[in-house]
Amino acid sequence: MTNPIKKIQVDAPTLQHYIDHLATIGWQPEGGIVRPVYSPAWLKARQQLAEWMRAAGLHVYEDAVGNLFGRLRGLDDTRTILTGSHLDTVKLGGKFDGALGILAGLVALQALHKHLGPPQRSLEVVALCEEENSRFHARYWGTRAILGLIEESQLEALRDEQNISIASAMRAAGLPPDQYRAPIRTDLDAFLELHIEQGRILFDEHIDIGIVQAITGLQHLLITVKGRADHAGTTPMDLRRDALQGAALMAVEITRLVQQEGRPAVVTLGQWDVRPGAVNVVPAEVRFSIDLRHPDAETLQRLSVAIQARCQAIAQERDLQLSSEITGQSAPQQMDPALQALLIRAAGACGATWKAMPSGAGHDSQTMARHLPTAMLFVPSIEGRSHSAAEETPLADAARGATVLATALSQLVYP
Amino acid sequence: MTNPIKKIQVDAPTLQHYIDHLATIGWQPEGGIVRPVYSPAWLKARQQLAEWMRAAGLHVYEDAVGNLFGRLRGLDDTRTILTGSHLDTVKLGGKFDGALGILAGLVALQALHKHLGPPQRSLEVVALCEEENSRFHARYWGTRAILGLIEESQLEALRDEQNISIASAMRAAGLPPDQYRAPIRTDLDAFLELHIEQGRILFDEHIDIGIVQAITGLQHLLITVKGRADHAGTTPMDLRRDALQGAALMAVEITRLVQQEGRPAVVTLGQWDVRPGAVNVVPAEVRFSIDLRHPDAETLQRLSVAIQARCQAIAQERDLQLSSEITGQSAPQQMDPALQALLIRAAGACGATWKAMPSGAGHDSQTMARHLPTAMLFVPSIEGRSHSAAEETPLADAARGATVLATALSQLVYP
Repeated sequence: MTNPIKKIQVDAPTLQHYIDHLATIGWQPEGGIVRPVYSPAWLKARQQLAEWMRAAGLHVYEDAVGNLFGRLRGLDDTRTILTGSHLDTVKLGGKFDGALGILAGLVALQALHKHLGPPQRSLEVVALCEEENSRFHARYWGTRAILGLIEESQLEALRDEQNISIASAMRAAGLPPDQYRAPIRTDLDAFLELHIEQGRILFDEHIDIGIVQAITGLQHLLITVKGRADHAGTTPMDLRRDALQGAALMAVEITRLVQQEGRPAVVTLGQWDVRPGAVNVVPAEVRFSIDLRHPDAETLQRLSVAIQARCQAIAQERDLQLSSEITGQSAPQQMDPALQALLIRAAGACGATWKAMPSGAGHDSQTMARHLPTAMLFVPSIEGRSHSAAEETPLADAARGATVLATALSQLVYP
Repeated sequence: MTNPIKKIQVDAPTLQHYIDHLATIGWQPEGGIVRPVYSPAWLKARQQLAEWMRAAGLHVYEDAVGNLFGRLRGLDDTRTILTGSHLDTVKLGGKFDGALGILAGLVALQALHKHLGPPQRSLEVVALCEEENSRFHARYWGTRAILGLIEESQLEALRDEQNISIASAMRAAGLPPDQYRAPIRTDLDAFLELHIEQGRILFDEHIDIGIVQAITGLQHLLITVKGRADHAGTTPMDLRRDALQGAALMAVEITRLVQQEGRPAVVTLGQWDVRPGAVNVVPAEVRFSIDLRHPDAETLQRLSVAIQARCQAIAQERDLQLSSEITGQSAPQQMDPALQALLIRAAGACGATWKAMPSGAGHDSQTMARHLPTAMLFVPSIEGRSHSAAEETPLADAARGATVLATALSQLVYP
């Protein structure tokens, strides 16, 4: 990767056309896209993508779980560099989350093919399935199929809201669930994913490209604080065991601890259940969720322990009972250093400003990175809006990101 | 009221029998009493009370809204001293809240009649209807009927959960809603109400009798804090407008302000609604209720203003929008000083320890006191439990309270 690097410019109008057209598939009258995995909208979007891939001269195929690939065959067709992202959306999601990574990969392959001809190694763009838990609690389903991480029992166990198993949904979409191990790939040398930032750091700082250093580690906790229900009028403040008073102080202290740690540590207390929930009854029980994230595993663990210890201390001071339960977690994942360096060189060659940063959200790259060299680049999100119809990235930013991607890929497949 | 005062002892076993028997009417298999106004259980309880009143030699009658009276006629039968409390219960309420005030009045009248013969002025015990909002939002309905405070429009406007109007419910119970002004009384000279404390002050301090100085004033507020929803992973702490962070700090500060004021100020934040309520989304909006009480009107107002100002300051510091709405209020009500002094003398004559205290809960006496000399006495509630099947007052405490009541009444009607 030390040969001279040359900018590979993608075609911005084509990218614009792809983005706008794909957004119409699953678009809802109230605004936002609904394109859950294996749904008619998802199938239609895949069909459209396959058409564009074929028109671009790529070899198009799908695997047993529904990942869709467009392959630019290399002179050596035994090894593959993969780029892409996911096709499914959150409910009423935007035009860019996932989709832009696929479409940027597609225009990148078109540009490379046009300017440099057939590559040395093969190059593929992929539309991965079910990154968002769009229909099943089957996050990174497509990626896990490629890496051989799907367990047979999940085919029946994973159910959507209508209690349809993921196996049934696959069959209904014309895919063979019993072939769930067929997608496993042993030919992949690297994965590069372009994605919108979904935050406002690049936007606020007027930076073109984010080079992801690590995908943040995450811990979800459910905190339960138990006190005693009492009459709101007849119980003096000093005789109360008010679960809400305790929980509110915990919330303030948790926020303070994490703010004190500084960026990129974040914590969110998003779900609250206060019982019995009457205006004139002292709360007996409060449950609240903690979503704690940090890209460094040790720091994440240290913060989690500090938070739980502080909550325990507050509970003891106030004669409240505390329990905490870990309801979800994922370890931080470093991106490949050599691929990060390549993306930085590519950004430089394209005249793009860049910033190394963690990803606060999870991505397919998180799982890919455990098994093959993987890196991600971010493009700005206007005002950081995401997971909504308001999600927006200017064409210039999207095309610049795709150009950096194409430029980096050129170094991997045209040595 | 300066003649020598002599203890009038009530019959404790009779009181015990009344309490236990009345509690069976409306008792639920899961524990607790359901006796909403105008219901079959309420009618049955009233029938039972009427029977006991008649057996005690009282003249029994009801008024148009369903208040039930047992009258011990005086030598002068034109003026009346009234005692009693309410017959309805909260859903799954206890045996003592309301009921004890009626039954203590009944055994007091029995004791007075037995020991002192016919009184100078007439003496009545009343079972008032709908103190608890047991079925309609018609608090102090019976008392308001007696005081002429019912407005005709309320007869159709007040609806229960089945959308039955209070007028229909009255008709179904055999009562004439168009006669709603007939219950107005002009012969009442005083009202004395015995009630359980529903708090734990007397219980904790081992005091026999609470002499109510004032019924607390109350303000209910609904606070709405608006911020901005953001991705829990991708939005740095310092770029958030987290409504929950703001609301939690407000909760801590509200509690601090009221604790600093000291007894008897109390505040309760019982209802919370955090939106959108997802684990991984920064809360955009929080609504919470404030129940603020103080028996002094000026202090109540000062605290309310201070709370709202502090919340506003926190909202401004954090770029959050705040709105507050008063959803309910009632002014503090002083009890009659002469009647308080009489109750204290009666407690002394009975060898009972006593403590002057505010009532943190609302009572019929609150409304009565605006129109005629009124006072209340409390007996202890074990551990302060109330509005539940766990509500309990030892017989010795209940009988002592009824004895103090009888002793005080003797001074009013046997001059």
